[in-house]
Amino acid sequence: MKKYLLTDEWNIIENEFHADRLRASESIFSLGNGRLGQRGNFEESYNSDTLQGSYVAGITFLDRTRVGWWKNGYPNFFSRIPNAPNWSGIYVRLIDEELDLATWDIDRFERRLDMKEGISYRDFEVTSPKGHTLQVHVEHLNSMANQNLCLIKYSVTSVNYEGKISLVPYLNGDVKHESSNFDEKMWNIIRAETTNEYTYLWTQTKREDSQVCCAMTYQFFKNSKEVAVSAIKIEKEKMTGFSAGADVKPGDRVTLIKYTGILSSLQHERLELVEHAVKESREAKAKGWEKLVSQHKDIWKKIWEQTDIVIDGDPDAQQAIRFNIFQLNQSYRGDDARLNIGPKGFTGEKYGGNTQWNTELCCVPYFLLSNPEDVARNLLLYRYNQLPQAIENAQKLGFGNGAALYPMVTIHGEECHNEWEISFEEIHRNNIIVYAIMLYTQVTGNNEYIARYGLEVMIAICRFWSQRVSYSQAKQKYVLLGVTGPNEYENNVNNNWYTNFSCAQCLQMTLDYLEIIAHEYPDEYSRIRRATGFQYAETTRWQEIIDNMYLPVDEEKGIFIQDDGYADKELTTVNDIPAEERPINQNWSWDRILRSCYIKQSDVLLGLFLYSWHFDRETIARNFHFYEPRTVHESSLSPFVHAILAAWIGDMDKAYNLFMHATRLDLDDYNNEVNQGLHVTSMAGSWQIIVRGFAGMKIENNRLHFSPVIPPQWNSYTFKINYRGCTIEMKVDKEEIKITMMTGDELNIYIRNVVYLLSRGKELIIPN
Amino acid sequence: MKKYLLTDEWNIIENEFHADRLRASESIFSLGNGRLGQRGNFEESYNSDTLQGSYVAGITFLDRTRVGWWKNGYPNFFSRIPNAPNWSGIYVRLIDEELDLATWDIDRFERRLDMKEGISYRDFEVTSPKGHTLQVHVEHLNSMANQNLCLIKYSVTSVNYEGKISLVPYLNGDVKHESSNFDEKMWNIIRAETTNEYTYLWTQTKREDSQVCCAMTYQFFKNSKEVAVSAIKIEKEKMTGFSAGADVKPGDRVTLIKYTGILSSLQHERLELVEHAVKESREAKAKGWEKLVSQHKDIWKKIWEQTDIVIDGDPDAQQAIRFNIFQLNQSYRGDDARLNIGPKGFTGEKYGGNTQWNTELCCVPYFLLSNPEDVARNLLLYRYNQLPQAIENAQKLGFGNGAALYPMVTIHGEECHNEWEISFEEIHRNNIIVYAIMLYTQVTGNNEYIARYGLEVMIAICRFWSQRVSYSQAKQKYVLLGVTGPNEYENNVNNNWYTNFSCAQCLQMTLDYLEIIAHEYPDEYSRIRRATGFQYAETTRWQEIIDNMYLPVDEEKGIFIQDDGYADKELTTVNDIPAEERPINQNWSWDRILRSCYIKQSDVLLGLFLYSWHFDRETIARNFHFYEPRTVHESSLSPFVHAILAAWIGDMDKAYNLFMHATRLDLDDYNNEVNQGLHVTSMAGSWQIIVRGFAGMKIENNRLHFSPVIPPQWNSYTFKINYRGCTIEMKVDKEEIKITMMTGDELNIYIRNVVYLLSRGKELIIPN
Repeated sequence: MKKYLLTDEWNIIENEFHADRLRASESIFSLGNGRLGQRGNFEESYNSDTLQGSYVAGITFLDRTRVGWWKNGYPNFFSRIPNAPNWSGIYVRLIDEELDLATWDIDRFERRLDMKEGISYRDFEVTSPKGHTLQVHVEHLNSMANQNLCLIKYSVTSVNYEGKISLVPYLNGDVKHESSNFDEKMWNIIRAETTNEYTYLWTQTKREDSQVCCAMTYQFFKNSKEVAVSAIKIEKEKMTGFSAGADVKPGDRVTLIKYTGILSSLQHERLELVEHAVKESREAKAKGWEKLVSQHKDIWKKIWEQTDIVIDGDPDAQQAIRFNIFQLNQSYRGDDARLNIGPKGFTGEKYGGNTQWNTELCCVPYFLLSNPEDVARNLLLYRYNQLPQAIENAQKLGFGNGAALYPMVTIHGEECHNEWEISFEEIHRNNIIVYAIMLYTQVTGNNEYIARYGLEVMIAICRFWSQRVSYSQAKQKYVLLGVTGPNEYENNVNNNWYTNFSCAQCLQMTLDYLEIIAHEYPDEYSRIRRATGFQYAETTRWQEIIDNMYLPVDEEKGIFIQDDGYADKELTTVNDIPAEERPINQNWSWDRILRSCYIKQSDVLLGLFLYSWHFDRETIARNFHFYEPRTVHESSLSPFVHAILAAWIGDMDKAYNLFMHATRLDLDDYNNEVNQGLHVTSMAGSWQIIVRGFAGMKIENNRLHFSPVIPPQWNSYTFKINYRGCTIEMKVDKEEIKITMMTGDELNIYIRNVVYLLSRGKELIIPN
Repeated sequence: MKKYLLTDEWNIIENEFHADRLRASESIFSLGNGRLGQRGNFEESYNSDTLQGSYVAGITFLDRTRVGWWKNGYPNFFSRIPNAPNWSGIYVRLIDEELDLATWDIDRFERRLDMKEGISYRDFEVTSPKGHTLQVHVEHLNSMANQNLCLIKYSVTSVNYEGKISLVPYLNGDVKHESSNFDEKMWNIIRAETTNEYTYLWTQTKREDSQVCCAMTYQFFKNSKEVAVSAIKIEKEKMTGFSAGADVKPGDRVTLIKYTGILSSLQHERLELVEHAVKESREAKAKGWEKLVSQHKDIWKKIWEQTDIVIDGDPDAQQAIRFNIFQLNQSYRGDDARLNIGPKGFTGEKYGGNTQWNTELCCVPYFLLSNPEDVARNLLLYRYNQLPQAIENAQKLGFGNGAALYPMVTIHGEECHNEWEISFEEIHRNNIIVYAIMLYTQVTGNNEYIARYGLEVMIAICRFWSQRVSYSQAKQKYVLLGVTGPNEYENNVNNNWYTNFSCAQCLQMTLDYLEIIAHEYPDEYSRIRRATGFQYAETTRWQEIIDNMYLPVDEEKGIFIQDDGYADKELTTVNDIPAEERPINQNWSWDRILRSCYIKQSDVLLGLFLYSWHFDRETIARNFHFYEPRTVHESSLSPFVHAILAAWIGDMDKAYNLFMHATRLDLDDYNNEVNQGLHVTSMAGSWQIIVRGFAGMKIENNRLHFSPVIPPQWNSYTFKINYRGCTIEMKVDKEEIKITMMTGDELNIYIRNVVYLLSRGKELIIPN
């Protein structure tokens, strides 16, 4: 854990230059707008360790699979979002020197990510090896109002330099992708052209022809006055740009505004890409910086009105929860069902921008409860649209009859991962997809999505389970052999409790909804039967599996057993691990990790959280007290689940600490890995800690429940959620719970199991 | 299974050209002499699918590890024997055509591997696209008498061609290695030079500086008369050679003899390599073809005198067992403790020429019982010399106190394999190393090797087990969690019976020999204590583990259970698998294989074979009848073990079929993979079927036992073994067992538990 950023309720501030934390800061200061993503790279040259990263949503490169030892069933390709052509670069050149923070003396350095506005600011004063001192001010944003635009304002003031300063905005297609499997470069340049007014770079990913065109215009100012410079055109094979310069004296300032339009073949016909990109950048320039920035800020204002959480009395927590909400909204806007959210969003290369089950576990509840309905619905439709590939994926593994196994990681629906113990065995991922459909249906209150889309997915998943279970003569029960549970620090185990339990739940939910849809939507039901060949007789086996699923328990301890072998392990606790050996995944051999009892992330406990209506508080407490001390939380998906359960069982100390762990995971770099990118998806888990944990929101039997508690460190917390067409705001402080209905008419809510009728305009206040 | 080779007791004959089986034939017709290995590649050009392969023992290239997802503990490098510079190539050129069996019409084709002589012969008649017909005769050998020499005699007779025929012997360093992890070429050329008399190519492996120098001289003949041709020198950057030609008329024959000396930095100082290589090839030429061939044949004569097995009445079996013995002796000569035997010998790239536990399981018993004592001893010393790396390997995984984990695959002692479930978990491999030491001691009858070398290895391995076991509170027993047993179709299981049992055996053997050495070799014992820091107190825990090791059993069925989860599987049999889905490793997803009950290779049964003195015939039979029907034998290490057990329990049908499976595995390509190379190490298992299976040889309580049986298909079989300084020959036919002592004085042997005194000069004949 490393705290080097200043605490501020609305800003992330780094007020010194930390070369050793440059990659980490690049992750944290990332900018995105759902379509474009950009690590917080310096615009000017930086000739030292840095991870350059610009990403375009949905644009992929088919990397050849790299594997040590091939296993039948592995995919041939790993589809990844490549590091895009660099559209944000601006060289800063003096007569015979070039600005470079790696070699110049840094007299002053500050950068600030304004989360309210969605703009990154950088201010520094530097002195060149020859003694020339410059002051630099940079503003950088990816427009939320026009998701095709990246806007940069770059100002340089001479302190003691006299001579020409050139600002060189460029586009560069000759980028590398550090995680490339075989050191391949990923882009072909189709065409590059530079006119006096604009330049563009038209590119395609090798082996797949995803296309991106970047087009750029600029304005040049001297001492705030726009000047028409006759810029030198840069026209290299893979790089284009302008060199725009002016002679300065000490005190003079030159400023360049770079307007870049970045368009992809997701939005436009390939042959029209250049035209549209050029148009975007020219129109942006015509509109001008002030107006573009103002439109961008307006969108952020709306986002914050919808989803802000206010925490009074704890600036570290306030800053962190806003950082989490900020990055989530930078990563996903919910306007395109072809897109999803990679675990790192657009903040690094790790996981290749692929979608994982994090989406359903963390993000769907967040977007569903805090955003317009369509946003979560698009996340669900993403999976629905990929059902054919999920069926194909199951076929590759030997399953038939329309059984679906959703991939562990994917962009376009095909499995991209190639670890047998994960790709083939971490199959519980199917169940969270059904869970998300169920949650969507409960929160929206209507079954139309299930009838139109969800049920097909559910049937296909049930068919998978029906074939994947086997019957143990020894146990006289259905078993699931050879699985990896959520705890990836055990692999290839038998009867992972979470997998077995959620499998049965998934079958049960499908049986329940089958009845409902057959009655409420008979036409859709017929369509689904025709489309899937579903026979009601299939449900007989599903029911038999539900009734006879093996679930390992330890009666004596009163807990569920994580899997068949877990009880044989040496059951030490995390406190027995020397501090210098944490995180264990960076210090222990994989072998040692696997044999240990240490849990990467909630496993049994995850089941208790997700399917909470089946378990009483004492059961949850017993399991929590057994498993939490053995959990190292080396997955970002872990702390939030534990924080919620801790809040439920009244362990507020633990709940608060785990909240801070989950929420400040990246800001304080708990696992020493933020250099690789942010844990964007799990940030939605942080939001859930407050709403589902501290406020105790649950939906049970079609009723909306809350059981609010508040960490002693806080004066109050306030959030909004959407539920069945209503938006309600809840403020919890130490004395009372105040609930206001913002939109909607009337709603019954249960506070600590007492029902209250909520209606618009009236505040409901309940003593806490 | 594909039989396309003719049956002959001393030869392997392919009498038609099979382009589709070219790679397979290249494997089968491989030539080696323990130091040099060569696939049966055509000397002339072949512009179609072929796997070129020449290999030099002990010369390695450090390939970068290729892995999909890194696990802590993986090695950075994979050390492999690279495809060496091509020293066997001879282009055959007409005026404007070049001989190429891929494009010329083949009128007649035969090749023959003479196993008695160790020479490969090839005869064919071909017609070029322009209608020129040639007859070609080739003789090729890697000298057993001088292991640095490759000798080729290449004759071309014109049938209807008039004009110049050029024979172009060359050395080529620009070779590729198909299995290269990152498509790297592996050789740097240090220097190449061509004089009128000789040419050489001096090369080094990249990243490691293993060096090989090939030097070549030649003789040219026209119609059997040597002619001095003024050859054209070929001097390319990575290739050298001569173009030697003569004008011919129909009926004329030109012949080229290529004498190549191939020397490596294992034998010589790097800077003297060129000098020695040139000397070898010049001296060879001076000695001449006839003499060199005759010396080579003499060595093979001696080898066959020592190790031939004669089977009367079954030419397929006779051919196969000789092929197995032949390839074993081509792969390993036992004169250099730095060398070992890769699973494919020198016949392909697969496994990179690395040593695996196959050596101890298959090869040590074969060489120990049939070759001079030093040969097996060198195999044992190979491991002893690598003890420091085995200790380091264990350290990387978190073990201390001098614990050793021998690598799964290695050349120089470091673990090279990178599948966690194998490298970290298939740890039973440690035990076969102790077993081999024990066997060596029993067969030689003296404890000197253990005192000087073996005990250190044994202590280090026991220390590993002492740390690797854990105590299960639930079972109140010591358990071994997270292992992969010999059956690699299950991974990461708990309590693999074979691993647990052999672990306890290994601890017990070490305890036994500790006592013996402490008394017999007190000085060595003191030295070992000092060298290893061994404390006798350590044995208390070893004894405790032996006494409390958990061994899964099914009391009802009276069998040992392969591992903790096995009984939960659906226990179908191999007969339930459709024929077109065999071998399952080429047709099923890995996931399906893992979940099935199907066993790749003997696992429980292997334990019953190796530690047979602990089990009665009924126990063996019960386990055999349970496990054999579930075993797919997709490892070459499997059939021989089952064949032996089948012979022991009197199932001669099964025993014979499995003998043929094991012995003709490559000749008839049972697993559709001989194109990758031969299963050289398991060939030693075939030999064991006869000696330990049919003849029932066992050593129990220091007594040599036999219980001979004979397959009904045979009239008789005859073999020799060495035991405690004696060599005895045993001939078993349907009427009697005839035993002759060839060397040695007197020996008690037990035939079906009846003791007989054997003495030199007297034949012992017992009715069968």
